[in-house]
Amino acid sequence: MPLWKIYHPENAFTEQDKKSIAEGLTAIYPLPKFYVGVVFEQIPKHSFYIGGEPADDFVRIWVDHIARQMDNDAIKERFFAAVNKLFTPFTTDRGLRWELHVDETPFSLWRIQGLRPPLPNTPAEKKWRDENRPSDY
Amino acid sequence: MPLWKIYHPENAFTEQDKKSIAEGLTAIYPLPKFYVGVVFEQIPKHSFYIGGEPADDFVRIWVDHIARQMDNDAIKERFFAAVNKLFTPFTTDRGLRWELHVDETPFSLWRIQGLRPPLPNTPAEKKWRDENRPSDY
Amino acid sequence: MPLWKIYHPENAFTEQDKKSIAEGLTAIYPLPKFYVGVVFEQIPKHSFYIGGEPADDFVRIWVDHIARQMDNDAIKERFFAAVNKLFTPFTTDRGLRWELHVDETPFSLWRIQGLRPPLPNTPAEKKWRDENRPSDY
Repeated sequence: MPLWKIYHPENAFTEQDKKSIAEGLTAIYPLPKFYVGVVFEQIPKHSFYIGGEPADDFVRIWVDHIARQMDNDAIKERFFAAVNKLFTPFTTDRGLRWELHVDETPFSLWRIQGLRPPLPNTPAEKKWRDENRPSDY
Repeated sequence: MPLWKIYHPENAFTEQDKKSIAEGLTAIYPLPKFYVGVVFEQIPKHSFYIGGEPADDFVRIWVDHIARQMDNDAIKERFFAAVNKLFTPFTTDRGLRWELHVDETPFSLWRIQGLRPPLPNTPAEKKWRDENRPSDY
Repeated sequence: MPLWKIYHPENAFTEQDKKSIAEGLTAIYPLPKFYVGVVFEQIPKHSFYIGGEPADDFVRIWVDHIARQMDNDAIKERFFAAVNKLFTPFTTDRGLRWELHVDETPFSLWRIQGLRPPLPNTPAEKKWRDENRPSDY
Protein backbone atom coordinates (compact mmCIF):
# COMPACT_ATOMS: atom_id res chain seq x y z
CA MET A 1 0.00 0.00 0.00
CA PRO A 2 -0.28 2.21 -1.82
CA LEU A 3 0.44 0.90 -5.30
CA TRP A 4 0.74 3.64 -7.90
CA LYS A 5 0.49 2.68 -11.57
CA ILE A 6 1.51 5.45 -13.92
CA TYR A 7 0.78 4.97 -17.60
CA HIS A 8 2.78 7.50 -19.58
CA PRO A 9 3.76 8.24 -23.18
CA GLU A 10 7.10 7.01 -24.46
CA ASN A 11 10.02 9.05 -23.15
CA ALA A 12 7.78 11.32 -21.09
CA PHE A 13 9.90 10.85 -17.99
CA THR A 14 13.63 10.54 -17.41
CA GLU A 15 15.08 8.23 -14.79
CA GLN A 16 15.52 11.27 -12.56
CA ASP A 17 11.90 12.33 -13.12
CA LYS A 18 10.72 8.87 -12.12
CA LYS A 19 12.84 8.85 -8.99
CA SER A 20 11.63 12.33 -8.05
CA ILE A 21 8.00 11.31 -8.50
CA ALA A 22 8.50 8.14 -6.46
CA GLU A 23 10.26 10.07 -3.70
CA GLY A 24 7.58 12.73 -3.72
CA LEU A 25 4.81 10.15 -3.43
CA THR A 26 6.62 8.37 -0.61
CA ALA A 27 6.84 11.66 1.29
CA ILE A 28 3.08 12.17 1.07
CA TYR A 29 2.27 9.15 3.21
CA PRO A 30 2.82 8.91 7.00
CA LEU A 31 3.62 5.24 6.53
CA PRO A 32 6.66 2.97 6.43
CA LYS A 33 8.46 4.17 3.29
CA PHE A 34 8.64 0.69 1.79
CA TYR A 35 4.83 0.56 1.69
CA VAL A 36 4.88 2.96 -1.25
CA GLY A 37 5.21 1.16 -4.59
CA VAL A 38 5.26 3.03 -7.89
CA VAL A 39 5.34 1.39 -11.29
CA PHE A 40 5.84 3.34 -14.49
CA GLU A 41 4.39 1.78 -17.62
CA GLN A 42 5.35 3.29 -20.94
CA ILE A 43 2.40 3.08 -23.34
CA PRO A 44 3.41 2.81 -27.01
CA LYS A 45 1.85 5.07 -29.60
CA HIS A 46 -1.64 4.09 -30.73
CA SER A 47 -2.23 2.14 -27.54
CA PHE A 48 -3.96 4.73 -25.40
CA TYR A 49 -7.20 6.46 -26.29
CA ILE A 50 -9.20 9.22 -24.65
CA GLY A 51 -12.73 9.75 -25.92
CA GLY A 52 -12.00 7.52 -28.91
CA GLU A 53 -8.95 9.52 -30.02
CA PRO A 54 -5.31 8.43 -29.73
CA ALA A 55 -3.82 10.31 -26.79
CA ASP A 56 -0.05 10.35 -26.84
CA ASP A 57 0.09 13.36 -24.53
CA PHE A 58 -1.71 11.80 -21.59
CA VAL A 59 -0.54 10.49 -18.22
CA ARG A 60 -3.10 8.15 -16.68
CA ILE A 61 -2.50 7.31 -13.06
CA TRP A 62 -4.39 4.84 -10.96
CA VAL A 63 -3.78 3.92 -7.41
CA ASP A 64 -4.74 1.26 -4.91
CA HIS A 65 -4.81 2.36 -1.29
CA ILE A 66 -4.60 -0.53 1.12
CA ALA A 67 -3.10 0.49 4.47
CA ARG A 68 -5.40 3.41 5.15
CA GLN A 69 -8.81 4.62 4.04
CA MET A 70 -9.42 8.33 3.60
CA ASP A 71 -12.60 8.68 5.55
CA ASN A 72 -13.26 12.37 5.55
CA ASP A 73 -13.20 15.24 3.09
CA ALA A 74 -10.40 17.17 4.76
CA ILE A 75 -8.03 14.22 4.41
CA LYS A 76 -8.97 13.75 0.78
CA GLU A 77 -8.46 17.42 0.00
CA ARG A 78 -5.03 17.46 1.62
CA PHE A 79 -4.07 14.31 -0.23
CA PHE A 80 -5.11 15.58 -3.66
CA ALA A 81 -3.53 18.99 -3.03
CA ALA A 82 -0.23 17.23 -2.37
CA VAL A 83 -0.64 15.00 -5.43
CA ASN A 84 -1.47 17.98 -7.66
CA LYS A 85 1.54 19.88 -6.41
CA LEU A 86 3.79 16.91 -7.09
CA PHE A 87 2.52 16.05 -10.57
CA THR A 88 1.84 19.46 -12.09
CA PRO A 89 5.50 20.15 -12.98
CA PHE A 90 5.76 16.71 -14.63
CA THR A 91 2.46 16.92 -16.53
CA THR A 92 0.54 20.18 -17.02
CA ASP A 93 3.72 22.28 -17.09
CA ARG A 94 5.06 20.07 -19.89
CA GLY A 95 1.88 20.14 -21.95
CA LEU A 96 0.76 16.69 -20.85
CA ARG A 97 -2.83 16.03 -19.83
CA TRP A 98 -3.38 13.81 -16.83
CA GLU A 99 -5.99 12.02 -14.77
CA LEU A 100 -5.91 9.85 -11.70
CA HIS A 101 -8.23 7.78 -9.60
CA VAL A 102 -7.79 5.88 -6.38
CA ASP A 103 -9.45 2.68 -5.23
CA GLU A 104 -9.43 1.43 -1.66
CA THR A 105 -8.87 -2.29 -1.19
CA PRO A 106 -9.16 -4.55 1.90
CA PHE A 107 -6.43 -4.31 4.53
CA SER A 108 -6.93 -7.95 5.50
CA LEU A 109 -6.08 -9.15 1.96
CA TRP A 110 -2.57 -7.72 1.87
CA ARG A 111 0.79 -9.36 2.61
CA ILE A 112 4.45 -8.25 2.38
CA GLN A 113 7.06 -10.99 2.10
CA GLY A 114 4.31 -13.32 3.29
CA LEU A 115 3.71 -11.28 6.45
CA ARG A 116 0.48 -9.61 7.42
CA PRO A 117 1.34 -5.92 7.91
CA PRO A 118 0.68 -4.61 11.42
CA LEU A 119 -2.49 -2.69 12.13
CA PRO A 120 -2.31 1.10 11.78
CA ASN A 121 -0.64 3.04 14.57
CA THR A 122 0.59 0.03 16.49
CA PRO A 123 4.08 -0.42 17.96
CA ALA A 124 4.75 -3.05 15.30
CA GLU A 125 3.90 -0.61 12.52
CA LYS A 126 6.17 1.97 14.13
CA LYS A 127 8.98 -0.60 14.17
CA TRP A 128 8.42 -1.35 10.48
CA ARG A 129 8.51 2.38 9.76
CA ASP A 130 11.64 2.99 11.84
CA GLU A 131 13.50 0.07 10.30
CA ASN A 132 11.97 0.59 6.82
CA ARG A 133 11.51 -3.13 6.32
CA PRO A 134 9.06 -5.87 7.31
CA SER A 135 9.83 -8.17 10.25
CA ASP A 136 8.05 -10.75 12.34
CA TYR A 137 6.05 -9.31 15.21
CA MET B 1 -13.86 7.14 -15.72
CA PRO B 2 -14.14 4.61 -17.07
CA LEU B 3 -10.68 3.21 -17.53
CA TRP B 4 -10.56 0.19 -19.83
CA LYS B 5 -7.48 -2.01 -19.76
CA ILE B 6 -7.34 -4.50 -22.61
CA TYR B 7 -4.70 -7.22 -22.42
CA HIS B 8 -4.39 -8.81 -25.84
CA PRO B 9 -2.08 -11.18 -27.73
CA GLU B 10 0.63 -9.73 -29.92
CA ASN B 11 -0.70 -8.31 -33.17
CA ALA B 12 -4.30 -9.16 -32.31
CA PHE B 13 -5.49 -5.66 -33.15
CA THR B 14 -4.55 -3.17 -35.84
CA GLU B 15 -4.42 0.55 -35.16
CA GLN B 16 -7.80 0.83 -36.86
CA ASP B 17 -9.21 -1.96 -34.67
CA LYS B 18 -8.00 -0.16 -31.58
CA LYS B 19 -9.49 3.12 -32.66
CA SER B 20 -12.79 1.43 -33.51
CA ILE B 21 -12.94 -0.26 -30.11
CA ALA B 22 -12.12 2.99 -28.32
CA GLU B 23 -14.74 4.88 -30.31
CA GLY B 24 -17.31 2.16 -29.70
CA LEU B 25 -16.66 2.21 -25.97
CA THR B 26 -16.89 5.98 -25.87
CA ALA B 27 -20.29 5.80 -27.57
CA ILE B 28 -21.63 3.44 -24.89
CA TYR B 29 -21.38 6.00 -22.12
CA PRO B 30 -23.67 9.04 -21.72
CA LEU B 31 -20.69 10.96 -20.34
CA PRO B 32 -18.22 13.56 -21.49
CA LYS B 33 -16.28 11.73 -24.19
CA PHE B 34 -12.91 12.48 -22.62
CA TYR B 35 -13.94 10.51 -19.53
CA VAL B 36 -13.46 7.29 -21.50
CA GLY B 37 -9.87 6.04 -21.36
CA VAL B 38 -8.79 2.84 -23.09
CA VAL B 39 -5.34 1.33 -22.84
CA PHE B 40 -4.24 -1.61 -24.97
CA GLU B 41 -1.49 -3.77 -23.51
CA GLN B 42 0.09 -6.35 -25.74
CA ILE B 43 1.00 -9.44 -23.73
CA PRO B 44 4.01 -11.34 -25.07
CA LYS B 45 3.86 -15.08 -25.61
CA HIS B 46 4.21 -17.20 -22.46
CA SER B 47 3.09 -14.31 -20.28
CA PHE B 48 -0.61 -15.00 -19.98
CA TYR B 49 -2.13 -18.16 -18.55
CA ILE B 50 -5.66 -19.42 -18.22
CA GLY B 51 -6.23 -22.39 -15.95
CA GLY B 52 -2.48 -23.00 -15.82
CA GLU B 53 -2.08 -23.18 -19.61
CA PRO B 54 -0.45 -20.54 -21.83
CA ALA B 55 -3.26 -18.65 -23.55
CA ASP B 56 -2.09 -16.74 -26.58
CA ASP B 57 -5.62 -16.57 -27.98
CA PHE B 58 -7.18 -14.67 -25.11
CA VAL B 59 -8.30 -11.07 -24.66
CA ARG B 60 -8.62 -10.16 -20.99
CA ILE B 61 -10.39 -6.91 -20.31
CA TRP B 62 -10.82 -5.19 -16.99
CA VAL B 63 -12.48 -1.95 -16.29
CA ASP B 64 -12.76 0.61 -13.54
CA HIS B 65 -16.01 2.54 -13.42
CA ILE B 66 -15.72 5.78 -11.48
CA ALA B 67 -18.24 8.39 -12.63
CA ARG B 68 -21.33 6.22 -12.33
CA GLN B 69 -22.38 3.08 -10.53
CA MET B 70 -24.70 0.64 -12.26
CA ASP B 71 -27.26 0.18 -9.55
CA ASN B 72 -29.89 -2.01 -11.14
CA ASP B 73 -30.02 -5.12 -13.30
CA ALA B 74 -31.58 -3.46 -16.32
CA ILE B 75 -28.69 -1.00 -16.59
CA LYS B 76 -26.15 -3.80 -16.25
CA GLU B 77 -27.86 -5.89 -18.91
CA ARG B 78 -27.94 -3.01 -21.35
CA PHE B 79 -24.32 -2.24 -20.66
CA PHE B 80 -23.10 -5.79 -21.20
CA ALA B 81 -25.28 -6.23 -24.28
CA ALA B 82 -23.58 -3.18 -25.80
CA VAL B 83 -20.13 -4.43 -24.76
CA ASN B 84 -20.77 -7.88 -26.23
CA LYS B 85 -21.97 -6.40 -29.48
CA LEU B 86 -18.87 -4.24 -29.71
CA PHE B 87 -16.29 -6.90 -28.86
CA THR B 88 -17.68 -10.01 -30.55
CA PRO B 89 -16.39 -9.05 -34.03
CA PHE B 90 -12.93 -8.38 -32.58
CA THR B 91 -12.76 -11.52 -30.43
CA THR B 92 -15.13 -14.47 -30.85
CA ASP B 93 -15.50 -13.90 -34.60
CA ARG B 94 -11.70 -14.07 -34.92
CA GLY B 95 -11.29 -17.19 -32.80
CA LEU B 96 -10.14 -15.28 -29.73
CA ARG B 97 -11.51 -16.11 -26.30
CA TRP B 98 -12.30 -13.21 -24.01
CA GLU B 99 -13.35 -12.24 -20.53
CA LEU B 100 -14.03 -8.98 -18.77
CA HIS B 101 -14.84 -7.69 -15.36
CA VAL B 102 -15.69 -4.28 -14.00
CA ASP B 103 -14.91 -2.76 -10.65
CA GLU B 104 -16.55 0.35 -9.27
CA THR B 105 -14.28 2.83 -7.51
CA PRO B 106 -15.01 5.94 -5.40
CA PHE B 107 -16.16 9.08 -7.22
CA SER B 108 -14.60 11.28 -4.55
CA LEU B 109 -11.10 9.86 -5.22
CA TRP B 110 -10.91 10.93 -8.86
CA ARG B 111 -9.31 13.99 -10.46
CA ILE B 112 -8.77 15.17 -14.05
CA GLN B 113 -5.98 17.69 -14.60
CA GLY B 114 -6.11 18.23 -10.87
CA LEU B 115 -9.82 19.11 -10.95
CA ARG B 116 -12.58 17.29 -9.14
CA PRO B 117 -15.08 16.26 -11.86
CA PRO B 118 -18.56 17.70 -11.43
CA LEU B 119 -21.29 15.61 -9.87
CA PRO B 120 -23.47 13.58 -12.25
CA ASN B 121 -26.14 15.43 -14.16
CA THR B 122 -25.14 18.90 -13.06
CA PRO B 123 -24.79 21.96 -15.32
CA ALA B 124 -21.03 21.76 -14.84
CA GLU B 125 -20.96 18.16 -16.08
CA LYS B 126 -23.07 19.20 -19.06
CA LYS B 127 -20.54 21.95 -19.82
CA TRP B 128 -17.67 19.45 -19.65
CA ARG B 129 -19.58 17.16 -21.98
CA ASP B 130 -20.47 19.92 -24.44
CA GLU B 131 -16.91 21.26 -24.53
CA ASN B 132 -15.33 17.79 -24.28
CA ARG B 133 -12.69 19.05 -21.87
CA PRO B 134 -12.32 19.82 -18.17
CA SER B 135 -12.61 23.39 -16.90
CA ASP B 136 -12.92 25.21 -13.61
CA TYR B 137 -16.46 25.46 -12.31
CA MET C 1 -11.94 -14.55 -11.58
CA PRO C 2 -9.42 -14.42 -10.21
CA LEU C 3 -7.11 -12.23 -12.27
CA TRP C 4 -3.51 -12.28 -11.06
CA LYS C 5 -1.18 -9.55 -12.25
CA ILE C 6 2.45 -10.25 -11.48
CA TYR C 7 4.92 -7.42 -11.99
CA HIS C 8 8.42 -8.83 -11.98
CA PRO C 9 11.98 -7.78 -12.82
CA GLU C 10 13.41 -8.62 -16.21
CA ASN C 11 14.32 -12.28 -16.57
CA ALA C 12 13.15 -13.13 -13.05
CA PHE C 13 11.09 -16.07 -14.27
CA THR C 14 11.59 -18.68 -16.97
CA GLU C 15 8.75 -20.00 -19.07
CA GLN C 16 8.69 -23.05 -16.85
CA ASP C 17 8.57 -20.88 -13.71
CA LYS C 18 5.62 -18.98 -15.11
CA LYS C 19 3.77 -22.15 -16.02
CA SER C 20 4.45 -23.62 -12.57
CA ILE C 21 3.16 -20.49 -10.85
CA ALA C 22 0.04 -20.42 -13.03
CA GLU C 23 -0.63 -24.11 -12.39
CA GLY C 24 -0.05 -23.66 -8.67
CA LEU C 25 -2.46 -20.74 -8.52
CA THR C 26 -5.07 -22.65 -10.47
CA ALA C 27 -4.83 -25.51 -7.97
CA ILE C 28 -5.53 -23.17 -5.05
CA TYR C 29 -9.06 -22.38 -6.20
CA PRO C 30 -12.04 -24.78 -6.03
CA LEU C 31 -13.32 -23.24 -9.24
CA PRO C 32 -13.47 -24.04 -12.93
CA LYS C 33 -9.82 -24.00 -13.93
CA PHE C 34 -10.35 -21.55 -16.75
CA TYR C 35 -11.52 -18.94 -14.23
CA VAL C 36 -7.90 -18.47 -13.14
CA GLY C 37 -6.08 -15.90 -15.26
CA VAL C 38 -2.46 -14.95 -14.61
CA VAL C 39 -0.57 -12.24 -16.45
CA PHE C 40 3.16 -11.70 -16.05
CA GLU C 41 4.41 -8.20 -16.73
CA GLN C 42 8.12 -7.66 -16.94
CA ILE C 43 9.04 -4.25 -15.52
CA PRO C 44 12.12 -2.68 -17.08
CA LYS C 45 14.88 -1.29 -14.92
CA HIS C 46 14.20 2.14 -13.40
CA SER C 47 10.46 1.65 -13.75
CA PHE C 48 9.56 0.28 -10.34
CA TYR C 49 10.18 2.06 -7.06
CA ILE C 50 9.69 1.06 -3.44
CA GLY C 51 9.89 3.83 -0.87
CA GLY C 52 11.35 6.15 -3.49
CA GLU C 53 14.21 3.81 -4.41
CA PRO C 54 14.52 1.80 -7.64
CA ALA C 55 13.61 -1.79 -6.81
CA ASP C 56 14.84 -4.24 -9.39
CA ASP C 57 14.59 -7.14 -6.95
CA PHE C 58 10.89 -6.89 -6.25
CA VAL C 59 7.88 -8.92 -7.35
CA ARG C 60 4.65 -6.97 -6.93
CA ILE C 61 1.51 -9.03 -7.25
CA TRP C 62 -2.04 -7.79 -7.25
CA VAL C 63 -5.15 -9.77 -7.66
CA ASP C 64 -8.82 -9.25 -8.38
CA HIS C 65 -11.17 -11.81 -6.88
CA ILE C 66 -14.52 -11.90 -8.58
CA ALA C 67 -16.20 -15.31 -8.28
CA ARG C 68 -15.96 -15.63 -4.52
CA GLN C 69 -15.47 -13.37 -1.54
CA MET C 70 -13.38 -14.57 1.37
CA ASP C 71 -15.75 -13.78 4.18
CA ASN C 72 -14.03 -15.17 7.22
CA ASP C 73 -10.55 -15.21 8.70
CA ALA C 74 -10.02 -18.96 8.44
CA ILE C 75 -10.55 -18.86 4.68
CA LYS C 76 -8.18 -15.92 4.32
CA GLU C 77 -5.49 -17.63 6.39
CA ARG C 78 -5.72 -20.81 4.34
CA PHE C 79 -5.58 -18.82 1.14
CA PHE C 80 -2.51 -16.80 2.09
CA ALA C 81 -0.76 -19.87 3.50
CA ALA C 82 -1.17 -21.55 0.11
CA VAL C 83 -0.02 -18.43 -1.72
CA ASN C 84 3.06 -18.07 0.49
CA LYS C 85 3.96 -21.71 -0.01
CA LEU C 86 3.66 -21.31 -3.77
CA PHE C 87 5.61 -18.06 -4.14
CA THR C 88 8.39 -18.43 -1.57
CA PRO C 89 10.56 -20.66 -3.80
CA PHE C 90 10.18 -18.19 -6.68
CA THR C 91 10.81 -15.05 -4.61
CA THR C 92 12.30 -15.12 -1.10
CA ASP C 93 14.41 -18.19 -1.85
CA ARG C 94 15.89 -16.36 -4.83
CA GLY C 95 16.59 -13.15 -2.99
CA LEU C 96 13.59 -11.33 -4.40
CA ARG C 97 11.33 -9.26 -2.20
CA TRP C 98 7.61 -9.50 -2.81
CA GLU C 99 4.24 -8.10 -1.87
CA LEU C 100 0.69 -8.83 -2.86
CA HIS C 101 -2.77 -7.50 -2.31
CA VAL C 102 -6.19 -8.68 -3.33
CA ASP C 103 -9.27 -6.69 -4.19
CA GLU C 104 -12.77 -8.12 -4.41
CA THR C 105 -14.90 -6.92 -7.31
CA PRO C 106 -18.61 -7.38 -8.10
CA PHE C 107 -19.77 -10.79 -9.32
CA SER C 108 -22.58 -9.23 -11.34
CA LEU C 109 -20.12 -7.17 -13.43
CA TRP C 110 -18.24 -10.13 -14.87
CA ARG C 111 -18.64 -11.92 -18.20
CA ILE C 112 -16.76 -14.73 -19.99
CA GLN C 113 -17.17 -14.93 -23.76
CA GLY C 114 -20.15 -12.66 -23.27
CA LEU C 115 -21.81 -15.08 -20.83
CA ARG C 116 -22.70 -14.35 -17.24
CA PRO C 117 -20.92 -17.03 -15.18
CA PRO C 118 -23.24 -19.27 -13.14
CA LEU C 119 -23.78 -18.53 -9.48
CA PRO C 120 -21.48 -20.31 -7.03
CA ASN C 121 -22.19 -23.96 -6.30
CA THR C 122 -24.91 -24.37 -8.89
CA PRO C 123 -25.24 -27.29 -11.34
CA ALA C 124 -24.28 -24.91 -14.14
CA GLU C 125 -21.05 -23.95 -12.36
CA LYS C 126 -20.31 -27.64 -11.83
CA LYS C 127 -20.81 -28.22 -15.57
CA TRP C 128 -18.42 -25.37 -16.39
CA ARG C 129 -15.90 -26.87 -13.98
CA ASP C 130 -16.28 -30.40 -15.33
CA GLU C 131 -15.99 -29.28 -18.94
CA ASN C 132 -13.41 -26.56 -18.17
CA ARG C 133 -15.07 -24.14 -20.55
CA PRO C 134 -18.04 -21.75 -20.59
CA SER C 135 -21.33 -22.79 -22.17
CA ASP C 136 -24.92 -21.55 -22.34
CA TYR C 137 -27.05 -22.62 -19.42
